[in-house]
This record gives sequence, structure tokens and C-alpha cells, in this order.
Amino acid sequence: MEHVSLDPDRLFPAEQRTRAVARELFALVEGVPIISPHGHVDPRILLDDVPYSDPATLLVSSDHYVTRLLHADGVPLDKLLGADPRDVWQLFCERWHLFAGTASGFWLRETLASVFGVDATPTPELYDVLAGKLAEPAFRPRALFDSFGIGVLATTDDPLDDLAPHVALLDDAGFGGRVIPTFRPDAYLDPAAPGWQARMQRLGASTYDGYIEAIEGRRAYFIARGAVSADHGVAHAVTVDLDRGDAVALFDRAMTGRATPAEAAAFRAHMLVESARMSVDDGLVMTVHAGVLRNHHTATRDAFGTDTGHDIPVATSFTENLRPLLQRFGTSEGFHLILFAVDESVWSRELAPLAGFYPSVYVGAPWWFLDAPDAILRFRAATTETAGFYRGSGFIDDTRAFMSIAARHATARRLDSGYLARLVVEGRLGMPEAERIAVDLVGDIPRRAFKL
Amino acid sequence: MEHVSLDPDRLFPAEQRTRAVARELFALVEGVPIISPHGHVDPRILLDDVPYSDPATLLVSSDHYVTRLLHADGVPLDKLLGADPRDVWQLFCERWHLFAGTASGFWLRETLASVFGVDATPTPELYDVLAGKLAEPAFRPRALFDSFGIGVLATTDDPLDDLAPHVALLDDAGFGGRVIPTFRPDAYLDPAAPGWQARMQRLGASTYDGYIEAIEGRRAYFIARGAVSADHGVAHAVTVDLDRGDAVALFDRAMTGRATPAEAAAFRAHMLVESARMSVDDGLVMTVHAGVLRNHHTATRDAFGTDTGHDIPVATSFTENLRPLLQRFGTSEGFHLILFAVDESVWSRELAPLAGFYPSVYVGAPWWFLDAPDAILRFRAATTETAGFYRGSGFIDDTRAFMSIAARHATARRLDSGYLARLVVEGRLGMPEAERIAVDLVGDIPRRAFKL
Amino acid sequence: MEHVSLDPDRLFPAEQRTRAVARELFALVEGVPIISPHGHVDPRILLDDVPYSDPATLLVSSDHYVTRLLHADGVPLDKLLGADPRDVWQLFCERWHLFAGTASGFWLRETLASVFGVDATPTPELYDVLAGKLAEPAFRPRALFDSFGIGVLATTDDPLDDLAPHVALLDDAGFGGRVIPTFRPDAYLDPAAPGWQARMQRLGASTYDGYIEAIEGRRAYFIARGAVSADHGVAHAVTVDLDRGDAVALFDRAMTGRATPAEAAAFRAHMLVESARMSVDDGLVMTVHAGVLRNHHTATRDAFGTDTGHDIPVATSFTENLRPLLQRFGTSEGFHLILFAVDESVWSRELAPLAGFYPSVYVGAPWWFLDAPDAILRFRAATTETAGFYRGSGFIDDTRAFMSIAARHATARRLDSGYLARLVVEGRLGMPEAERIAVDLVGDIPRRAFKL
Repeated sequence: MEHVSLDPDRLFPAEQRTRAVARELFALVEGVPIISPHGHVDPRILLDDVPYSDPATLLVSSDHYVTRLLHADGVPLDKLLGADPRDVWQLFCERWHLFAGTASGFWLRETLASVFGVDATPTPELYDVLAGKLAEPAFRPRALFDSFGIGVLATTDDPLDDLAPHVALLDDAGFGGRVIPTFRPDAYLDPAAPGWQARMQRLGASTYDGYIEAIEGRRAYFIARGAVSADHGVAHAVTVDLDRGDAVALFDRAMTGRATPAEAAAFRAHMLVESARMSVDDGLVMTVHAGVLRNHHTATRDAFGTDTGHDIPVATSFTENLRPLLQRFGTSEGFHLILFAVDESVWSRELAPLAGFYPSVYVGAPWWFLDAPDAILRFRAATTETAGFYRGSGFIDDTRAFMSIAARHATARRLDSGYLARLVVEGRLGMPEAERIAVDLVGDIPRRAFKL
Repeated sequence: MEHVSLDPDRLFPAEQRTRAVARELFALVEGVPIISPHGHVDPRILLDDVPYSDPATLLVSSDHYVTRLLHADGVPLDKLLGADPRDVWQLFCERWHLFAGTASGFWLRETLASVFGVDATPTPELYDVLAGKLAEPAFRPRALFDSFGIGVLATTDDPLDDLAPHVALLDDAGFGGRVIPTFRPDAYLDPAAPGWQARMQRLGASTYDGYIEAIEGRRAYFIARGAVSADHGVAHAVTVDLDRGDAVALFDRAMTGRATPAEAAAFRAHMLVESARMSVDDGLVMTVHAGVLRNHHTATRDAFGTDTGHDIPVATSFTENLRPLLQRFGTSEGFHLILFAVDESVWSRELAPLAGFYPSVYVGAPWWFLDAPDAILRFRAATTETAGFYRGSGFIDDTRAFMSIAARHATARRLDSGYLARLVVEGRLGMPEAERIAVDLVGDIPRRAFKL
Repeated sequence: MEHVSLDPDRLFPAEQRTRAVARELFALVEGVPIISPHGHVDPRILLDDVPYSDPATLLVSSDHYVTRLLHADGVPLDKLLGADPRDVWQLFCERWHLFAGTASGFWLRETLASVFGVDATPTPELYDVLAGKLAEPAFRPRALFDSFGIGVLATTDDPLDDLAPHVALLDDAGFGGRVIPTFRPDAYLDPAAPGWQARMQRLGASTYDGYIEAIEGRRAYFIARGAVSADHGVAHAVTVDLDRGDAVALFDRAMTGRATPAEAAAFRAHMLVESARMSVDDGLVMTVHAGVLRNHHTATRDAFGTDTGHDIPVATSFTENLRPLLQRFGTSEGFHLILFAVDESVWSRELAPLAGFYPSVYVGAPWWFLDAPDAILRFRAATTETAGFYRGSGFIDDTRAFMSIAARHATARRLDSGYLARLVVEGRLGMPEAERIAVDLVGDIPRRAFKL
């Protein structure tokens, strides 16, 4: 991978002594293999190892963090999704200033510089330069997997996925990387999700017991193919511990389409507790991503599908919502529950206090909009004083933008180095402690949290 | 305007290189004409151009940000409102230490220094010095309008106001400034507002259709006299998209005083959507100031009126509340919706994500209690990483304290310069980009957001 | 007290000039006697002045801030509570890294260094060193009270406590310290609290009037023995101003066990207003600690009791909840209402605005999880710009860990010095003002707020 003239001290605090300490700490972790225990990369790109088609599709159209801001500036989504890549690139270049100061802008610049060796404002002329590079072998996914130094990469998968790409990659003597699936059952746990009944049919579930057994069976299938975690995305992390009779009755009502919205919500809340019970039994780490109203603009969802930039956070709470689940499983041996939020007010208020008591609870890394330089520092400041460093999940990139993975992890490592450096210079941490923590943050801590 | 020995680097970050960059950026914007697209200055002071009566009325009694803190320290409001100005000034001087570290204290010191040339703790003796200056021609409102370098000043006006002062100012060959009205219809949109029925009568509205037409007519009247925006102040930004029949029925019930509180609330929420519809049609920028419980202490309101220092913020949410409005008009051509909050937890959680997708939504500048040095920096840090700089409203001073306008804009410019400087020194922004953004923040950005 | 080689500039900002100013300010307050107007130290330890048994019980087992994190790391509480102290110490030493970056870790290191003269990572060998010191006269509670320089220490007491230790300490010629009780009536004000009816019996209350009279009588008893404040701990600070008839009816229903949860809640909310009324009458400062769900994990509470590390914060609001109380007593002569929160989003949104208007309302210092270095700085930044320095309570340590009191106050003083230094270097405060404020923050401000 080429390197160009980006500021070697970027993201480090300005103050000179702190910066010097940050530099030392970053040097310890810069080259450590990347653990990416939660993300949305399609495993087929690694299986097929096909060259990327063009820079616009790769860096703009396929990244809804990027199309989002172009749309906000007035570009209709049909000029970005399915349009001519050169036109897309042109629109993007004209609006590069929109990305100044944003996390997406920083990653784009990092990626252009560290992957493509281009430290410059994107221009129309750059299109052909980047397209040329993408045609080179070094820019194919497997080569990047190696040059990024990815140790583990988790994907996110439908419970009924056969995981063929994962198995094929495992069997592929030409690929040495570790690519593991993640069990993502949301659409199977929520009777109000469109298509739930059809999904039950595909699952072969006609009774509550059969349903539970089928879910357990699919989890076992995932575990056998390397999965270490089950991921749950919810608007609100409400949990309800129903007794069996009530659960059976609600399931039956849902199967015949008679469940009211409140009953569907109760069943979904029950299934979050039931998922925890399964995790206690089978050992899958349970991750919960909470607090997002998906598809805020229905017309856009209808025209362009989901993940088109209008999933918007809402106020989040865990203390009361998760209590039924934690009453039952909070201290269960081996249970891991990693909580992610996009409402930063819960960091100091709820996440760190919960993780500072329950052996099962881990503070999830800053997620989504909060996976950004200043937000990452706010996260550390908000959670460390209550929960320390060792009750966290380690960094997760949560991305479908494979090309940006190295940039994202490097960003997080620089910021953690800067945060630790501040504690050292403020006399709150000895340098040997800071060094150990810096290294643990990219190794032992995520490995322990995700049972890797 | 005289200048005295205030620290020329005030409000810039302490770190030397960052400070140097901030100084360079501020130099680019310090002298740029002020755009004040939302505030509460009475246009008559400019029309009549009468000298200010005295320093106590000007700087203390007429500013509820200032009387508020004196009241909290135990000074009854009747000793501040309508009392002898020298006594008021005396009380203020004795309690100057209360303002240490506050935004109001900073603006007062800035104003005293930059307008009056006095860089000292307020003393009783200063009263006559200031009174003497206020009698000079240079301290009359029009002269200050010029010396402040105000390019545009928006007032806030009742829908039935005839806007005579605005028209007279426009016609006044001796005044070259641009003073524009703002349509503020709250009291006409909320059937629960005291006097709503009488207001309907004055509006000539006896049916729902007549009511809508009358509102539209007044908006047109304002637009013809220079208005560019309609402002909405609400405790909660709840929106409901009623069908016509329901709206008519609620209006009729409200007109006969039979609407329940819930029905009045539904009608008010509907009228927020209807106001958006009007903005789509007539082009007025829609601003929403949300999250304040007005007149918290009823006895004070009854004795001294509104705007007496006890409007207190409450938890705010936009994502769910504004969804009905944004479903209909979020992507409407030319629609501008600027959202202001006094609950800073919505900045990263809702405002920036909404403005980062909807072309209509703009992130309103830090408002009220949050228009303060550290809060302004928290605002930039909370919103920029998600929405960038170009989805914002630009600074608004929102003040009735005309004398403080230059100080407030200078404060915001210094802080933005410092924020940009930090991004430069942290390697997140190039200097040319930072220079462009600094200039745009006081020019193109507010001009575009407010259609100026 | 011995001193060792801790960084003398610890907790000060890194930037050199700011650090130099912080150092100057801290020098002014480092030796000022400690005012501790709210805490949970058992007065018997000072009355009996018995040597501490051992370092593990003192520093680990008896501090649920510490056991909490060990429990989160997988140590069952029965290995920490009631276990062999040497085993506890061993477990603690093995997990010292958990405390890196936490407030508890900082206080522990401060205490070890400044009290015991040990600036090192805790090791098993240290146990005997510390145990040896604890056997020395200088390490007995009264000697520490003197060497810590404690001017006033408030305890927290049950309304029916006879306060014999307080009286005995007052009468003890050999002890010159001021140790005052605090009236803590929660369990008497909430009919839903377990044992409420039995408590009414002990109180001799069979009618509402008798109940009110009994509470007033116990307050008078406390006041006669030095109490200056009554403390209220609530999950939500809801207040309701019932008329007498409704209050009597609810009391009667509660006494016969027929009150519904909603009725019990209404009565509790009424009693908060009634407690304010009593404070207006008898002058006790009213403190409210709001926003904690106590005993989140029932099984742990059942096995190990309360205060075992799982009281978890929830979203808090004051503006609407306290309005009924403030409508009646917000401007009452001499009424002091100090509000503490563990949800930092209320700091800028509600606490500072309320304290910036109501003469009765004081902004409580950062509490519990938020009594930590970065959180203290966030607190100052969030509240000062709106409410200044003089509407605050001054620092409270809120601790049962007597040994840590000096460390906690020193921590707060260092951070306030650093905050003030930043304002000085940013040209927002003159050095003489900053010096006055630094001194007032540890003297006049808490003395005035708590009527000491």
C-alpha cells in the first residue's frame, strides 16, 4: 500500500507533550492486525475476488453515509444510485466541501491517501487514475484484506442464509483470512416485520415450540460455521419476560395475523429475553444496537429501498428497558451482552453504570453517527471514569464499505492513543499502564468481549 | 467605535499553534457585515432613532438574561423593572461577580469595551460616563447599526402587525440598512393560547377555510414587505397531518370554545404541518424553536409579564415528532426548515442526522442558553461530524438587546475560528478549506439558509 | 500526613500557560478546611475512634464503587463481602488494571499516596505495610479528621435516629470537629416503601395531621442537634400539590394498605411539596438527589443488601416535575433547594436555567458517577455559562468512604482550578476574579448554599 503526505500526527491532540505521548502509543498499535467483529461487508466480494467496477460506485454510490449528504444538498437519489458512475463522481467532486469536518470526509481522504496514494481534493480527472488502480491486482478484495492486515472479519447474515460463501472461503486454500458470519434474527423475532409469516413458513415453524427450536437450530448452524455473536437491531430495547402460556398465545395470534401492534411489541420484547436465554445456553455473544427509527422517509424507502440514509436516532434508555432481561441473565456465567447506542446521553448515564456492575454487560463502541473523531473522544470521557477500559467491546467499524475498514480502525486507534496520552499528561495514568491499555484495546479487549 | 485593551486572543484555544491559526481565520471574518436573520429588536428604535435613556435600562432592565441572574440572587424584580435606573445600576454593580463565566457577562464586557471603550468592572461611577456617551450622536441606534456593520436585521412580528416601521425605514432616504420582518404566528395557530378567539375575529376568520386564507394573506403581506421567514415557537415540535374534515371539525370546536386540551394540541400540531405547506407554496423559510416551557413561574408572569427570565427548557425530540411533516414536505423543492433546540442532547442524536439527509432541514445555531462560548464549541463538535458545515443556519443572535449584537456575532466568529483552527491543527482540514468555511459561515451559509 | 511523588500538576490542563495559572489558583485553596455538607460517613467511627481493621475492608469491601467493578469482572460478591481480607486484597491487586482511568482508581491512588505515602500499584505485599500503618495512632479516624482538615462533616440519618453519636461528639471535649446530622425521610414519605406502615407506628402517626406533626417534630429534633439540611432521594422528582382533603384520603388508604401504586406515587409527590413547605417554615435546606433506579438486580439485593453497586441512573427531568413545588415555594424567602442529578443532559437544559432564575434553586455538584475528573469539567462547562459560579452548591463528596474524603475534595479543587485557569487564558475571566471564585467555591459558596 502506498503512503502519501497526510499529516503523520493527524487526530492527535494539539498540545505538544500530549501529542508526543500519543505518537508513542499509536506506534505500538498501528500495525496490529485488525479485529472487525461486527460489520456488513458482503462475503461474496472476498469469495469472488472480482475487481471493483469503478471509483464512484465503490466510494460514493454504495456508501449511504456519503449519498446521504449529497442528497441533503439537493441531489436526487436517482442521480446517485444506478446512474452513470462518471456523472456520480462529478456530482461528488462538485460537493466535496460538504464533507469537510465529517467522519465520512475524513475516512474518504484517509482511504484515498493510504490505499490509493492520492492526497488531494477529489477531481473529475482523478476518476481515471482511481479506475486504473482498481484494475490492478493489488486493489482486489483479497489483496486489500491482506494489506489492511485484517485478522478477523465478521459479516451480518440472515438466519436462513446457508453461509455458503463463508464455508467456501474456509475451504479455499488460496485465502487465509478469517471471515465469520453473524446471526441477525430481527425480522424473525418481530411479528410486525413485513413478511414475518412467510418467514415462519420458510423456517418451518408452525408452533411456538417449533419456532424456538428452529431459531436455536439456525444459531447452531451459524456457530458450526464460525459465528460468535447474534446481533439485534431495535428501535427501543424493551424487554419483557413473558411466561410460556402468554408467549404461546401471542405466537398463535401473530401466526394468524390477529396480533395487535401492542401484542406484536410484547412478543418482540419477549423474544429479546428469549434470545438472551439462548445466548446463555449456546454461548453466542448478544449484541444490541438500539435507538434508531429506520426508514424515516417512506417515499425514499419505497423508491430506493432501505439503507438509503434516513435511519434517524431517537432518545434511548437501557436501565428500565433491559431490567427484565438482566434480572434473569445479568449475572449468568459466560453471558455477554454488548450494548450500542446512537444517543450519547446514555453513555455516562446508563451504559457505563450497567457495565460497571453486570459481568455480562459490555459498553459497545461509539456507533454509526458517533463513530467520528470528536464523538469517540466524548465516548471515552463519558464511559471510562465509571467503567474503565476493560468493560468495553473494543472498536467495531460496522461498515459495508470494505475499502474504508483500515481507515476506520486507524482513526479509532489514533483517537484512543490521544485520549490515553491526555490521561498520562494529566497525571491520571502511568505510561506503562497506558501502553498496556493501548495494546489491549486492539487485542485482548475485543477478543474477550466477542469470544474470539 | 472605540477599542480598548481586551485580550485580542480572547475565546481562542490556549494552545499556541491552534491560537495562531484561529487568529488568521478570525482576521478574515472580523469585518464582514453582520447577517442577523432572526432576532427581537424593535424596529421602532431604528425608525425613531431616539437616544437610549440610560445605561441601566439599556444594559440591565431590558435584558431578561441579565435580570434573571440578579433575581436568582435575591433581587425582587420590582427593583429592576420600572425602578430608578441609578438604583438598578447600583444593584447590578454590586452583583457583577454573578456574571463571571456566563455568556451574558461576556457580552456585557464586550459591549462595554467595544462600544463604550470601557474595559473595567462596572462601578456606580461608570453610570454617568455611559450616560454621557449615550447622549452622543454616535450612540444612537442608526449610528450603531452602521458602526456594527449590520447588513441585514430581521425583527419578529405579530401576523396582524401592519409593519409600518419596516415600510417607513425602507422609504427613509436617511437610512440605508435592511430591516426585515419575520412572521410569528404562534398565538394564531394554537387554540389554547389565551385570546385565540378574539384573534380569529381580528383576523376575520370564522371558518377553517377563511382562517387558512387569512393566514396565507398575512404571510403574503409580510413577504411583500421583505419577510423571508416564519418563526414557530413550541414546547414540543409535535406534528400531525389531519385530513381536511378533521381539521375543519377541530377548528369549529375551538371557535366555540369546546375543544379539549388534546383537541387543541392536535389542531396546533396540524397547523405546524399546514405552515410547512404554506412555506412550500410561498417560499417563506420555516424556523422552529422547540423545547421551552414558557413562564414557568406563574406569579412572576402575572406580576411582570412574559420574557421575565423563567422560560425553562425541557427534553426535546424531533425524529418522531416531525416525521408527519417531513414525510410530506421533507424533500419538497425549495422548502427550508431550520430547527433550533435548547436541549443539546438532540444535536448529535437528531438534528445533524436529519439535516444530513433531508434537503429541507437545516441545523439551527446554538440557541438561547446554548449561545455561549463552550456550548457553541460543543455544538460544532456535536453536529459537524455528521452534517458538516453546510447544513447549518449560520449564527443567529435571537436578541432584543440591540446593543449586544456586534458582541454576539464577534463571539460566534471567534469561536468558529477556534473550532476550525483545531481541525486544521489536528490534520482534519486544510487551511484553504478552513478559510473558505470561515468566510462561508458568515456569508453564503446564512444567506442560503434564510434565502437572503 | 506523608506525601510521595505523585505528579504535583495532576488533573491540570496540559497546556503550559493554563497549567501555570491552575497551579497558582490551586495553591490558594489546597489548604482550606474541607466543608463536607452531604455524605454517608457513620458518625460512630469518629465517636469510637477505633482503628480500622485492615486495608481490604477499608479500601475495597466497604466501598461499593470498588466492589462494583470487581463484580463486573466476574468476582462473585461473596468473595468480597465477608470474605477473608487478605483474599479480598489479593483479588483486588490482580484486577487493579480495571480501575485505570476511573474516578475510584484515581481516589484510591490519591489516598494511598497522600494518606499512606505509597505511590505504587497495589500488591499483595502492600497489605502488611498498610495494616501496620492502620495500627498507628495517626491513622485512627479522629486523627485523620484533623489531618484531612475537615471543617464540617454532615452525616445522613434516619428521622427516628436519636443522634446519640452526634450529641456525644459535641459533648466530647477531646474532639473539636463539627459533625452534623442530615434528615433523610425517604422511607417515611413513600407509602410504597417496604415497612412504611410499621414506620408510621414507630413515628406514632395514625392520622395525616399526626403524621405531618411527627415529621415536623423530628425535623426540629434534628435541627436542635445541628442539622442544616433534609435530603430526598427519588427516582423521579415528580411533585404534586394535593389539597388537604385528597392528602388525608390518600394517607388513610395507605395506612390500611389499600393505596394503589398510582396513589402511593401521588402521595409521595405531594410529600415532596410538603417537605418544601416544612423547609420554608423551619429553614432546613432541601436537597433532592434524583434519577436513580435503586437495586437494579433484585437477586443481588436479596443476597447482599442495598448499596451493592447496582443503583443505575435513568433519564431525569426537573422543569416539569418540579413546577408544582416551585410555583408555591420557588421564590419563598430563605428557601434553599439543591438539585443533584446523574443524568448530565439536565445540567445545561434544566438545572442551570432553573438556578439562574429561582432564588431558591442551587445547582448541585456533579454527583456519584459524575463526580469524576472529566465529568466535573463537563459540569462546569455545562452550567457556568447560564448560571455562573454563585448559584452552585459547592462540592459535595457524598461518600461513606471516610478515608477518601481528602482525596475527593482535592480532586474537585484541582479541577475547578483548571477550569478557572482555562477561562483566564481564554480571556474570559481576569485573574483577580478567578482567585476570588476559587476561594469562594470552597468557602462562601457551600456555606451559603447549606446555611453553614
